[in-house]
Amino acid sequence: MDMKKLDFRSDTVTLPTEEMLEKMVQAELGDDVYGDDATVNKLEAIAAEILGKEAALFVPTGTMGNLLAVMTHTIPGQEIILEESSHIYLYEVAGIARVGGVQARTIRGTNGVMNPHVVEDVIRKEDIHFPETGLICLENTHNMSGGMAIPLENMKQIYKVAKENNLPVHLDGARLFNAASYLKVEAREIVQYVDSVMFCISKGLCAPIGSLLVGTKGFIQRARKYRKMLGGGMRQAGVIAAAGIHALEEMTGRLDVDHQHAKLLAQKLREIPGISIDIDKVHTNIINVDFTESGFTTSQLIPRFEERGLLTNPRNQYVIRFVTHKDVTKQDVHDAITIIKQIIE
Amino acid sequence: MDMKKLDFRSDTVTLPTEEMLEKMVQAELGDDVYGDDATVNKLEAIAAEILGKEAALFVPTGTMGNLLAVMTHTIPGQEIILEESSHIYLYEVAGIARVGGVQARTIRGTNGVMNPHVVEDVIRKEDIHFPETGLICLENTHNMSGGMAIPLENMKQIYKVAKENNLPVHLDGARLFNAASYLKVEAREIVQYVDSVMFCISKGLCAPIGSLLVGTKGFIQRARKYRKMLGGGMRQAGVIAAAGIHALEEMTGRLDVDHQHAKLLAQKLREIPGISIDIDKVHTNIINVDFTESGFTTSQLIPRFEERGLLTNPRNQYVIRFVTHKDVTKQDVHDAITIIKQIIE
Amino acid sequence: MDMKKLDFRSDTVTLPTEEMLEKMVQAELGDDVYGDDATVNKLEAIAAEILGKEAALFVPTGTMGNLLAVMTHTIPGQEIILEESSHIYLYEVAGIARVGGVQARTIRGTNGVMNPHVVEDVIRKEDIHFPETGLICLENTHNMSGGMAIPLENMKQIYKVAKENNLPVHLDGARLFNAASYLKVEAREIVQYVDSVMFCISKGLCAPIGSLLVGTKGFIQRARKYRKMLGGGMRQAGVIAAAGIHALEEMTGRLDVDHQHAKLLAQKLREIPGISIDIDKVHTNIINVDFTESGFTTSQLIPRFEERGLLTNPRNQYVIRFVTHKDVTKQDVHDAITIIKQIIE
Amino acid sequence: MDMKKLDFRSDTVTLPTEEMLEKMVQAELGDDVYGDDATVNKLEAIAAEILGKEAALFVPTGTMGNLLAVMTHTIPGQEIILEESSHIYLYEVAGIARVGGVQARTIRGTNGVMNPHVVEDVIRKEDIHFPETGLICLENTHNMSGGMAIPLENMKQIYKVAKENNLPVHLDGARLFNAASYLKVEAREIVQYVDSVMFCISKGLCAPIGSLLVGTKGFIQRARKYRKMLGGGMRQAGVIAAAGIHALEEMTGRLDVDHQHAKLLAQKLREIPGISIDIDKVHTNIINVDFTESGFTTSQLIPRFEERGLLTNPRNQYVIRFVTHKDVTKQDVHDAITIIKQIIE
Repeated sequence: MDMKKLDFRSDTVTLPTEEMLEKMVQAELGDDVYGDDATVNKLEAIAAEILGKEAALFVPTGTMGNLLAVMTHTIPGQEIILEESSHIYLYEVAGIARVGGVQARTIRGTNGVMNPHVVEDVIRKEDIHFPETGLICLENTHNMSGGMAIPLENMKQIYKVAKENNLPVHLDGARLFNAASYLKVEAREIVQYVDSVMFCISKGLCAPIGSLLVGTKGFIQRARKYRKMLGGGMRQAGVIAAAGIHALEEMTGRLDVDHQHAKLLAQKLREIPGISIDIDKVHTNIINVDFTESGFTTSQLIPRFEERGLLTNPRNQYVIRFVTHKDVTKQDVHDAITIIKQIIE
Repeated sequence: MDMKKLDFRSDTVTLPTEEMLEKMVQAELGDDVYGDDATVNKLEAIAAEILGKEAALFVPTGTMGNLLAVMTHTIPGQEIILEESSHIYLYEVAGIARVGGVQARTIRGTNGVMNPHVVEDVIRKEDIHFPETGLICLENTHNMSGGMAIPLENMKQIYKVAKENNLPVHLDGARLFNAASYLKVEAREIVQYVDSVMFCISKGLCAPIGSLLVGTKGFIQRARKYRKMLGGGMRQAGVIAAAGIHALEEMTGRLDVDHQHAKLLAQKLREIPGISIDIDKVHTNIINVDFTESGFTTSQLIPRFEERGLLTNPRNQYVIRFVTHKDVTKQDVHDAITIIKQIIE
Repeated sequence: MDMKKLDFRSDTVTLPTEEMLEKMVQAELGDDVYGDDATVNKLEAIAAEILGKEAALFVPTGTMGNLLAVMTHTIPGQEIILEESSHIYLYEVAGIARVGGVQARTIRGTNGVMNPHVVEDVIRKEDIHFPETGLICLENTHNMSGGMAIPLENMKQIYKVAKENNLPVHLDGARLFNAASYLKVEAREIVQYVDSVMFCISKGLCAPIGSLLVGTKGFIQRARKYRKMLGGGMRQAGVIAAAGIHALEEMTGRLDVDHQHAKLLAQKLREIPGISIDIDKVHTNIINVDFTESGFTTSQLIPRFEERGLLTNPRNQYVIRFVTHKDVTKQDVHDAITIIKQIIE
Repeated sequence: MDMKKLDFRSDTVTLPTEEMLEKMVQAELGDDVYGDDATVNKLEAIAAEILGKEAALFVPTGTMGNLLAVMTHTIPGQEIILEESSHIYLYEVAGIARVGGVQARTIRGTNGVMNPHVVEDVIRKEDIHFPETGLICLENTHNMSGGMAIPLENMKQIYKVAKENNLPVHLDGARLFNAASYLKVEAREIVQYVDSVMFCISKGLCAPIGSLLVGTKGFIQRARKYRKMLGGGMRQAGVIAAAGIHALEEMTGRLDVDHQHAKLLAQKLREIPGISIDIDKVHTNIINVDFTESGFTTSQLIPRFEERGLLTNPRNQYVIRFVTHKDVTKQDVHDAITIIKQIIE
């Protein structure tokens, strides 16, 4: 009844820490639509600084950050290049089509990694039948491939192709700092190969609300107007931006723990007959767990897990996604393993 | 230097109270995208209950609330009827065109009040050349006319026209509770004549962030998906929703004070030679102050006011808007009058 | 039964002449999507030449020409300035909103003439709440005001305002040559004050299908791609373009006859008790005939006219529009007068 | 200089026959916007009748027909399922995104044939992150796979999946009658498995301009309004519709000849060293000719062909598309073979 929920659905469920809440209450506030919120201004300055870019914009969600990037980089009627299992394409309610007015040109990647030659091939030549290509989108870490990090070298090559074709590159970096942690580089080294990046202060960094869109001054200025158009221009937004400052200053270092927990979970689960996990793909805090050989389907397992307090989300009929985060302790991982073992066996 | 700012630019600048901040820190949180945030759920239930509607949706801004209403009620390519100085038409970055895909059919109202017969006249008949009319939008209180309240009888008549033509009505009720206060009715009496309403918990109600969109269950369900599309689906949104609950429970009663301050300011200012104000139009917390006969233009006056710590926004070349709110005390009103008098004379 | 139809509904009903059909059959054809249709190329060259512009594009309808102009001049999310009874705003199915993604900012003109100062006033300043103004649209002759011609001086003044604000001007010149005829100027003198113009070779010029969009080379090149997007890139279009060449070479001179017929009709009808017509407004081939004082409504009169073979279209409950054109002879005008007189009296 | 062009670029280049032109001149005309053009009405009736559907709509191009189908079946923000090399996705300027506002969900087919199970898999379940699936699009014959016909059985299976999921199916049947000819069935047997179909009277059927969109009465009624919005509502359209009637009555039988010419061309070309053609894929009038092993690239070959009067279009760096049609005789095929042989060897 009152058992602790083991919530592996997503790192979006993380609750703010006591310190975060404290910072939020003490934040200096103002009306951010007028540019008067000192805390928001500070968060935006820090975000730009950390990533080595000119400017940043605080937005209520990663979905809005990505949509603003598409709107700002492109003109409706253009085409954008995306990996076919990218979050923007699959999980953002087709906002790029309805609001952005752009066509998604999808490439089949390998673990979320797009071949630069294929990217180059699908860039549109001039022809009266063709839309113009307007943007290339990357995702790092790549959610659907199980939180795998995209190698810097690949990003560099795609960036080169983009620049040779005068195209901007946007990074869906919802879990940018997880990628940095895995790749053992600073986040700014990753984003040197993109023109704009969105990253979330919610998710593993534990802020309750919000993401940052980062790029050049001109880009951010135009994105700011589109944010107002979509209704993302909040007022005393410093109250939540304060959590973001804390997240950037204090929480990026803790992602390694989540990654270790994920690895632990993966290693133990794959020992259970009927479960398979490609351990080499467990880069960060997401694990795709394949139950095909257990004889159970996702829709059978998830409710049984839930009865025992273990919450998860399906990838498809046979694969369940597990995500580790601050509110999942090492003990929780062990408890989850126990529950799963009991149900499968 | 350290003088207090007299900020009459907008009631959007109000800061949260100590109690509000306390409530925010103590709020029970969850991931609202999964429907798990008890505080958001409570705010939405309260909002629907107060307004006598089935359901509500928490959104980061009034602009998003209005845009979602337009998206949910209409199909792109339709036409919507609006008063020609309505906030949706003039101040929301044309989101209804780019995102909503609808054409604004504007009517010249009197103090924001549209003539029901004119509304009826511009509803499109069936003709191959015509878009379909999809929605009628009202605004109460009406910002551009100086915060004037729209009479219930007018809303009732327009609602009747709408229903006879199978059209939905949406109310931009950013300052709905100011209207209720002036009209001396419950807010639910106002919104009985509309199918959906957006009202803000920021502005005069002092919450740092957010608005509510209210309507039928089906309407809110579809609006919820569009909210996700636009990037308004926040995570631990309870942290700000908590302020909204406090706002609805404790702050609606205080709007009368703002209205008294506005009346005081108006009465004193109109005694100054060179200034004219139509006192009968000062219904709530907004005053349009006309400096035409002072010989000064808006762009001359506003910076001089600002030097003295008095912040305002222009309506046009000769008219400045003053807005009263929680963070403007009676003393502040007197100080503002003194500053203006000195500068004009 | 076999009586001749007196078709005053529109000049769009004109049938091609024998000569035109002859030209169509003899036209040199090719695939215009590949730029291979010599007849289309010739029509486009002639149209540009006549109007003193760089390039032209053949389109199936005036509605498409106007929509392409809006798409090419603007970016979705911008605002365009229009007279509030303009054809683009009222009769083109809100394509500018759904397809163009732009917001219509309407001005109340006088007989279709917009005051240049008012145009200037509604051009948006930079403000986070405002869409950018992207285009000013004119209409000459102005359909809804009864085919009245817009004076050159007014166009010149608006063009000056536009250029001072770096805005393009588009002319809906569906009946451009009617305007030229009335104003006693060459069409190119009219379009010197606009950046792009659409005119119809159907309507009074009698071609069965089509219009031309005219502007700079760069503008037409981009419009050509949008034409393909909308599905206006026809193949052996020379077959209908041939009629357009004939129309431009042989038919512009005959519009005066239509105007004389309109004047005759107007003069005779206003002598009938119960009918009023402002004779000074009968500039070209359209007459707004007001039956208010006859005691009959539009929906009573039109079917009775139709029984007698007289076809017309309503403007509103009391006003019927009459349009003269090639297929309405002087005798037809007299017959129409007789029918109307009999029915009214 | 005066050598005959051997134009294998597309069947869109076909010129109207003498008889067709004769029919066009004699056509009974009227204003089709008012529904008064008897010839258009007749063409639409014949088209519906032939295909066993309720109603049809004459449109200037296949691109417009497909776009109208997407607009009419869907609501902006939905997703539509398409084969990843379909013409709508690759060659129609992304109109479905900008104008339709829908997201393309692409499936990798085999020779244009989509696996019904894969189609079923990508239909969206209800989830707050997902757009709704709104439409499935097919293409028969399938242009990019070299004019291959989609088997009826496959269409039947996909239609079954669609109906189980309450989804409409649209067929891009630009070359529907080529498919019917190859499959040795009536066209109506093909379209029994779709809710709407667009087919072209230009292309192999030789009319100079136009296509038909065919479906239920309600569907066509709504598409008619969207046609007006896009600017496809032509006036005396009977002048070109007449060619369409002739095309449907006299020209569908002649497509076999084009297919035989294509087969002849393919058989002879594949005997040339350096050229490869999968002869089993030559179903109709399109051949993808692979020059990889010749050592020449497309951009080297096409200009050399052109110097000799042989016109072709590239598929990619190594593959050239050849299309046979009325204006390519058996002798032309032999001449083309000679030219190619000389250049390759």
